[in-house]
Amino acid sequence: MKPISWDGRQLRVIDQRLLPVRVKWIDLNGAEDAFDAIREMKVRGAPLIGVVAAFGLALELQKKDSSNLEGLKTEAERIASRLNAARPTAVNLKWALDRMLETVRRSTNPDDCRNEAIKRAVEIMEYEEQTSRKIGEVGEPLLEDGETVLTHCNAGSLATVDYGTALAPIRVALKRGKRIRVIATETRPALQGARLTAFELMKDGIDVTLISDTMVGYVMSKGMVDKVIVGCDRLLSDGHVVNKIGTYQVATMADRHDIPFYAALPWSTVDLTTPLSEVKIEQRNPAEVELVRGRRIAPKGVKVFNPAFDITPPELVTGIITDRGMIYPPFRKSILEANERGLSRPVVARRV
Amino acid sequence: MKPISWDGRQLRVIDQRLLPVRVKWIDLNGAEDAFDAIREMKVRGAPLIGVVAAFGLALELQKKDSSNLEGLKTEAERIASRLNAARPTAVNLKWALDRMLETVRRSTNPDDCRNEAIKRAVEIMEYEEQTSRKIGEVGEPLLEDGETVLTHCNAGSLATVDYGTALAPIRVALKRGKRIRVIATETRPALQGARLTAFELMKDGIDVTLISDTMVGYVMSKGMVDKVIVGCDRLLSDGHVVNKIGTYQVATMADRHDIPFYAALPWSTVDLTTPLSEVKIEQRNPAEVELVRGRRIAPKGVKVFNPAFDITPPELVTGIITDRGMIYPPFRKSILEANERGLSRPVVARRV
Repeated sequence: MKPISWDGRQLRVIDQRLLPVRVKWIDLNGAEDAFDAIREMKVRGAPLIGVVAAFGLALELQKKDSSNLEGLKTEAERIASRLNAARPTAVNLKWALDRMLETVRRSTNPDDCRNEAIKRAVEIMEYEEQTSRKIGEVGEPLLEDGETVLTHCNAGSLATVDYGTALAPIRVALKRGKRIRVIATETRPALQGARLTAFELMKDGIDVTLISDTMVGYVMSKGMVDKVIVGCDRLLSDGHVVNKIGTYQVATMADRHDIPFYAALPWSTVDLTTPLSEVKIEQRNPAEVELVRGRRIAPKGVKVFNPAFDITPPELVTGIITDRGMIYPPFRKSILEANERGLSRPVVARRV
Repeated sequence: MKPISWDGRQLRVIDQRLLPVRVKWIDLNGAEDAFDAIREMKVRGAPLIGVVAAFGLALELQKKDSSNLEGLKTEAERIASRLNAARPTAVNLKWALDRMLETVRRSTNPDDCRNEAIKRAVEIMEYEEQTSRKIGEVGEPLLEDGETVLTHCNAGSLATVDYGTALAPIRVALKRGKRIRVIATETRPALQGARLTAFELMKDGIDVTLISDTMVGYVMSKGMVDKVIVGCDRLLSDGHVVNKIGTYQVATMADRHDIPFYAALPWSTVDLTTPLSEVKIEQRNPAEVELVRGRRIAPKGVKVFNPAFDITPPELVTGIITDRGMIYPPFRKSILEANERGLSRPVVARRV
């Protein structure tokens, strides 16, 4: 279930807001289309929004038939800054746009600049595709035959370009003959768990049970959960996991019940520079809380608070599954080490 | 916002499933109407379902014009057993029906039996009304001017007959000039927080902010919550709090953030006999999770788990606010003491 398609000329994405009721592909023709798709959550998931932003920038540059290289570069900076503002929390957006700007900056003529931008966007897409498989390989040994994994939000195919992040180890384990079941939290307000995770797992024939977000503690207390794996929108250098709102309480409940809690992410999600105090948590439209699929669930005019992410402290995180291998505490040290060694020596998961 | 009306002849209740969009009163004319209203959650909230069951039994007996006293008594037992099965977890149902049967059993002729049954149902309603105010008085000193209370589900007027349980101390504090704000969790799957708590507090001009259930940890981590007060569907003799699904994780997050966690309840909610291992957690229709206000939010055919309640262990409970005064740890001892002293010496709340 790849949520994005690029045929060399046209970029298309699934409008994920309509899932699971309808699978509708939409064309994205430039930066404003990409901005809107990211902002309005037609596409979502940290890796995917990075890829869409990269293509948004590349496609926009194709429209500028200027022969002025400097003008094109200035324009690229402006577009990147605009796209980066579409959603403030996930760092992949900035990561992808930084890489695009790097390419733009080193180009020596306008045609080269436009061509290289497209090539780089494709590379970023391929990177996310490959890392997704790698995350699956790295995390697979964590799962034993017969286990049940609880996941929050959607960190699956629909959030990335292929196997997903949190769901990748599960997919690899299943391919290797392990019987793994999944419990998906519905993930209010935007319901990514109910709409997307349940949908993509059922499509793949994977055993999935949906629960409301209120039921996490109960299913854990009943011994129904062996592992928790979630995605991540920004991993700080000290191991703080910025992820979909609700992750923090899932991690807290897992800790209470001695259930290992993992975040799975491509290295593009690692933010080595921003300190905890400067992480911006996106506040979204109150309508997401007051309405569900267009139906009003609360009185008109009610005050609403709608943070889109929360922050799970490192002491609640058992390990981090990345394309550069497993990261275990102490996180500050092991994240730096993994950053330096690059992709060369992935650390294989060990059981806990 | 009284959700029940009895004019001496006709019992009427608000169909709470339609709130906050519509306030629709419906007539309940006997046991089957009461059973259906409780089962389908037209009425909900531990104290209120006890009252409705009591009236259901009393009204049904009016229809039996038998002059056979023993037949009437046997019939009453049958009806009570049927009503008791409408929802298995809240103990108030059994509490109210036991009291009704006590009255029926000691009646000496059929007319007396029918009349006394109605009187007893009215008494039970009045008891819940009075205890609701008392709970407010007992709990009010816990709240300081300017504080914010987080509550889960609806333990307000709509769950009881008057001030509510969890919301009663807030109402009393406001009447005494304290500025108290409320954060209400939406409480999936049935959305009692969004639909009912937000609705009744806004109607009373009380400052309320709605959040999704996923946001509890975040608002606590931001220092936005001073106290948690929830209702209770069954308090066990050792202090285990059986309450709406999601309560356990709210209590766990409160504990993590050193926020006092209180359950508020009338003595009719105390179950001195059932051990923890025998508490039955009601599993409800999967449709409640898959659909929201009739709109599908998950793929057709998805597996769903839908427990309606969870159990908060005593070590997470700071205190219990009851019409018999505050109950503090060690709970087993203080619950027994309060049970023995009855209503005579309510213990006033102390700050923590």
